[in-house]
Amino acid sequence: MNKKLNIGLFGFGVVGQGLYHILQATPSLQARIKKICVKDARKTRSIPAEHFTYDKYQLLNDPSINVIVELINDADEAYHIVKQALKQGKHVVTANKKMLAEHLEELYALQVQHGVSLLYEASACGSIPIVRNLEEYYDNELLHELSGIFNGSSNYILTQLGEKGSDYAEALKEAQDKGFAETDPRLDVEGYDAKNKLCILATHAYGKFIQPEDVFNYGISQISAFDVKLAKERGQKIKLVCRAYKSASDELFLYVLPTFIASNHPLYHVDHEYNGVITAAGFADKQFFSGKGAGGFPTGAAVLSDISALLYDYKYSYKKLLAGDLLRSSNTLSIEVYLRSEKALPIDTLGITDISEQYTGNGQHYVVGYLSLHGLLTHKSLLQESAISLVATGRILEREAPPKQDAVGLQVQASSR
Amino acid sequence: MNKKLNIGLFGFGVVGQGLYHILQATPSLQARIKKICVKDARKTRSIPAEHFTYDKYQLLNDPSINVIVELINDADEAYHIVKQALKQGKHVVTANKKMLAEHLEELYALQVQHGVSLLYEASACGSIPIVRNLEEYYDNELLHELSGIFNGSSNYILTQLGEKGSDYAEALKEAQDKGFAETDPRLDVEGYDAKNKLCILATHAYGKFIQPEDVFNYGISQISAFDVKLAKERGQKIKLVCRAYKSASDELFLYVLPTFIASNHPLYHVDHEYNGVITAAGFADKQFFSGKGAGGFPTGAAVLSDISALLYDYKYSYKKLLAGDLLRSSNTLSIEVYLRSEKALPIDTLGITDISEQYTGNGQHYVVGYLSLHGLLTHKSLLQESAISLVATGRILEREAPPKQDAVGLQVQASSR
Repeated sequence: MNKKLNIGLFGFGVVGQGLYHILQATPSLQARIKKICVKDARKTRSIPAEHFTYDKYQLLNDPSINVIVELINDADEAYHIVKQALKQGKHVVTANKKMLAEHLEELYALQVQHGVSLLYEASACGSIPIVRNLEEYYDNELLHELSGIFNGSSNYILTQLGEKGSDYAEALKEAQDKGFAETDPRLDVEGYDAKNKLCILATHAYGKFIQPEDVFNYGISQISAFDVKLAKERGQKIKLVCRAYKSASDELFLYVLPTFIASNHPLYHVDHEYNGVITAAGFADKQFFSGKGAGGFPTGAAVLSDISALLYDYKYSYKKLLAGDLLRSSNTLSIEVYLRSEKALPIDTLGITDISEQYTGNGQHYVVGYLSLHGLLTHKSLLQESAISLVATGRILEREAPPKQDAVGLQVQASSR
Repeated sequence: MNKKLNIGLFGFGVVGQGLYHILQATPSLQARIKKICVKDARKTRSIPAEHFTYDKYQLLNDPSINVIVELINDADEAYHIVKQALKQGKHVVTANKKMLAEHLEELYALQVQHGVSLLYEASACGSIPIVRNLEEYYDNELLHELSGIFNGSSNYILTQLGEKGSDYAEALKEAQDKGFAETDPRLDVEGYDAKNKLCILATHAYGKFIQPEDVFNYGISQISAFDVKLAKERGQKIKLVCRAYKSASDELFLYVLPTFIASNHPLYHVDHEYNGVITAAGFADKQFFSGKGAGGFPTGAAVLSDISALLYDYKYSYKKLLAGDLLRSSNTLSIEVYLRSEKALPIDTLGITDISEQYTGNGQHYVVGYLSLHGLLTHKSLLQESAISLVATGRILEREAPPKQDAVGLQVQASSR
């Protein structure tokens, strides 16, 4: 590849503008933005109009452009752009996690077929270089576990709940006022955004393409001051945790759930808009990474690092796709959860087992017991319609598996039955 | 380069054995150990004798060996081996931080001259992939700050002091009994090992070769139960912290000092044999990495990751060596320190200024005030001979610089004079 990068940029928001300015300020980096495609012709721009176009084909069909950097919000349009770019033999850098999570298998194949690079460090956990570390550093072994806090907006809200004792609606309003949450916050607070990132990272950690719709996610919108107070009394915080867990019998479990986190756990201290990632592998042991999960500059740094990697022909090698064949995705894992509602809980319908706590009082009902991932997926609508707050305790139960301690120090209990 | 790696291995301790077994178990990795050079012919080995030699030239002069992996303790011998290997056109993977810190500039030049790779992820912070991240992720900007806990043994001892209230000698004995500290612990507990790592990382963070003897280090051997109790009363812990700090006027300051760490600081939670690294850069913002700092498996994982990188012709690009010309290494920085002794403190000889606290009682004397890095280097022997416990508060003072907040949230005060 020609070592001079001619970039066609889609989107000129905070990240795009930051990227433009740093490339201007770094002439030593053999990369320049040739043209920027934006949607809204009426917006006033911070740089002269000649840099812009409103026609995506001016970038996609320009043979002198060898790299497309895609930084737009619309996941469907991004998918179309990235697919076209790869087919035209252009390298692609993107930050669009929703698009990637939904289409990674197809885009991976296109990238192989056309001999180009598709890089997306900025798509997961903002400034934390987690994709590259999974690719390069943990490239010879499957991880026992990959978990963490992958969404800054919901973590900001949970931090507000914990620190100020405010209620969910209040904390969400504040996050929106401060620009930490979208006007439609559903992707963030219901765990969909975090789940998309988990699916992307699972491909690099385990060599499997996972469809987001096969993974259980539950959000934080039902978390109340009551739940937060209970956690506090037990010396814990509630965090929205993503988890991918490989069992000894090569089953792979993924889920996204609010989780009680004890004060000696690394994620306990990941507050506000920060993200944190824990990896655990046999040889490399446990690692913990944290950094800002969102924002123009942290995301821009990740995009820049991908652009810089293109200068030396870097591409993800997806080495684990072969090893991943050994793994079976599964939903048989049992998870201990706390369920709370202002109404009586549908314990029998849900099929909660191994109940260890049950409480009724002060207009609240809660129960602590086990539900399988399969059961959670089946009953998700019921849980939501019943306005149930759902928080994992961190304990899991591999049915028919021997008792063991899991990789990040959360207890794994054997079934007593 | 031929994509099949034929490895000549020096040293067969815990790391070497772990590496041997994982390479045996991973035939997909095109790397095999051809011969192992060890020192002690009388030792019983866990694999057949035919694998071993006691003559280093059997490895260094074997043209079929294209990679030397150096895992011995003796820094001088390691230097000789690595130099010879590079001159013979062999790639080198090493974990020897003392050797690297002392000879990095020369080895860098040799590696360029002979067109081979010299990789050393295992030399700094065990399992944390920090060298690679500095090289690849922060490759386009100089860091404001690089700091952390880089030595597992001393951190283990400090954790014991803090948790059990034991005295230094007691904690050291326990660390030695458990195999966390060497029989001669001076390299670890006096901060030399941490300093070596800081110098290596500074080359990748700032593009400068730093000689360890130009950098001030002070160890933990004078830390007493009195100091630890004082820290606790203020909600802090004492940690042995390495710090490289770039001022706004492009001066570079490096030092290794026991430091009071508040409970909201990421390093507060890095206990036992763990290491932690904080990076701060304008664009990528703050990042925090933690993981096991020592031990056969974490180190082995880092060595393996370097071997794996050789398969795709990876070498460090040392891109910042050009940018580093802009920086001036300096010792004019003023650091606020706590000095304690059972005898009266030589305040005037040391030239302590801006004293904010002074205490005498219970057979102890302490003072909190400012000393320049230059003054600390000059008076190091006096500090040690007077059995003074020295702990930084985290506050620094750039003389003639405007008041500012530094990158990791430690306060930077302007001189009031």
